[in-house]
Amino acid sequence: METHDSHQDQLSHLSPSTVENDQVHPGYLETKDSYLKRLRRIEGQVRGLHRMICEEQYCIDILTQIAAATKALESVALGLLHEHLSHCVLQAIQSEPETAKEKVAEATAAISRFVKS
Amino acid sequence: METHDSHQDQLSHLSPSTVENDQVHPGYLETKDSYLKRLRRIEGQVRGLHRMICEEQYCIDILTQIAAATKALESVALGLLHEHLSHCVLQAIQSEPETAKEKVAEATAAISRFVKS
Amino acid sequence: METHDSHQDQLSHLSPSTVENDQVHPGYLETKDSYLKRLRRIEGQVRGLHRMICEEQYCIDILTQIAAATKALESVALGLLHEHLSHCVLQAIQSEPETAKEKVAEATAAISRFVKS
Amino acid sequence: METHDSHQDQLSHLSPSTVENDQVHPGYLETKDSYLKRLRRIEGQVRGLHRMICEEQYCIDILTQIAAATKALESVALGLLHEHLSHCVLQAIQSEPETAKEKVAEATAAISRFVKS
Repeated sequence: METHDSHQDQLSHLSPSTVENDQVHPGYLETKDSYLKRLRRIEGQVRGLHRMICEEQYCIDILTQIAAATKALESVALGLLHEHLSHCVLQAIQSEPETAKEKVAEATAAISRFVKS
Repeated sequence: METHDSHQDQLSHLSPSTVENDQVHPGYLETKDSYLKRLRRIEGQVRGLHRMICEEQYCIDILTQIAAATKALESVALGLLHEHLSHCVLQAIQSEPETAKEKVAEATAAISRFVKS
Repeated sequence: METHDSHQDQLSHLSPSTVENDQVHPGYLETKDSYLKRLRRIEGQVRGLHRMICEEQYCIDILTQIAAATKALESVALGLLHEHLSHCVLQAIQSEPETAKEKVAEATAAISRFVKS
Repeated sequence: METHDSHQDQLSHLSPSTVENDQVHPGYLETKDSYLKRLRRIEGQVRGLHRMICEEQYCIDILTQIAAATKALESVALGLLHEHLSHCVLQAIQSEPETAKEKVAEATAAISRFVKS
């Protein structure tokens, strides 16, 4: 008969440890620097859009840059979503199964908001 | 110490039984009729688009109908995604934890394809 | 001094004749058959989705097919939009310039609805 | 018989004068300040996202903010698109009709890039 401990072992190898000293860390901790770099780049793209409008550049060129910034934001969102499902949601199922349904509903609501944006 | 059995009890109340006679059923089983109705309606919308083009109706009206059909399809997708995460993925974590990471990756890849469509 | 007639000549070479016997035809007339074929294919995709749900196929496979159908609908919409701007809107500017602003507003409202769908 | 001059009068009332001293200005000139304000706000939203990641805030809250920033960018794009069609494209049809088809193709390509982003 499988004990909770060996069941926990099976789950733990699926996600890096995200619980330290009873403090829960979000799933993107390992790739935090990468997200920070990407967001700085997107911030620069938006400042660039501001400059393009100041300089009265051609509308189509501005639209092209907006599409690029939107795509970059979308990419960050999809990455965070993956890590959230892989870590935060799995973690909840492992340690507090009664919250799992709620965590899934919360995640799909966030996906829904993103899809409709 | 929590045994696997009582751990399973905690998880099972979160999703209706989807395993019968060793056969795994998808998570949308309970709401199957609802999805079938909605898809018939969307099929009708697409046939309507065909008719509008045949009758050479105004472009803008056709674009409005396409937006409606797309919105309806998106709604079906979000519903199926929610049920997939709530049932199929939870089920995998419960009975085959070593497949959970793979199931999550598969789900986020599907979300990604949908977001980019 | 350029007359309205030679101005009209300059515009007319930009769009195929869409005015016959005082009846205005939509801009997609030339490519009507192509749109009809594509819509029949999308109708088939939606019937396929219905069948997949009936057969209780795997959620992810259904989501993949929904993404494909959505992409196909989007492609039809972008084509129709292009033809609408290239023909109907140009036509309006040529023959009824006072309606041009209204036609542009109507087109961007349709684009907006589509983007948000 | 309508002369080119009176035809031009009819078109000119549809868009503010965007030709000064032979220099062409983009269509968003009148609402430039508004776009600049909105872009500054979006830049602030992206900096906020950076801070949220630094502070290791909850994934779902970050996803919600990304959806808000994306929606705001989309809104700027739709506004610019409308002004581009209402001014730049109309202007081209009025003064250089032989470039109109090309301008429309350029606009629909930009819309297509944006829709797929």
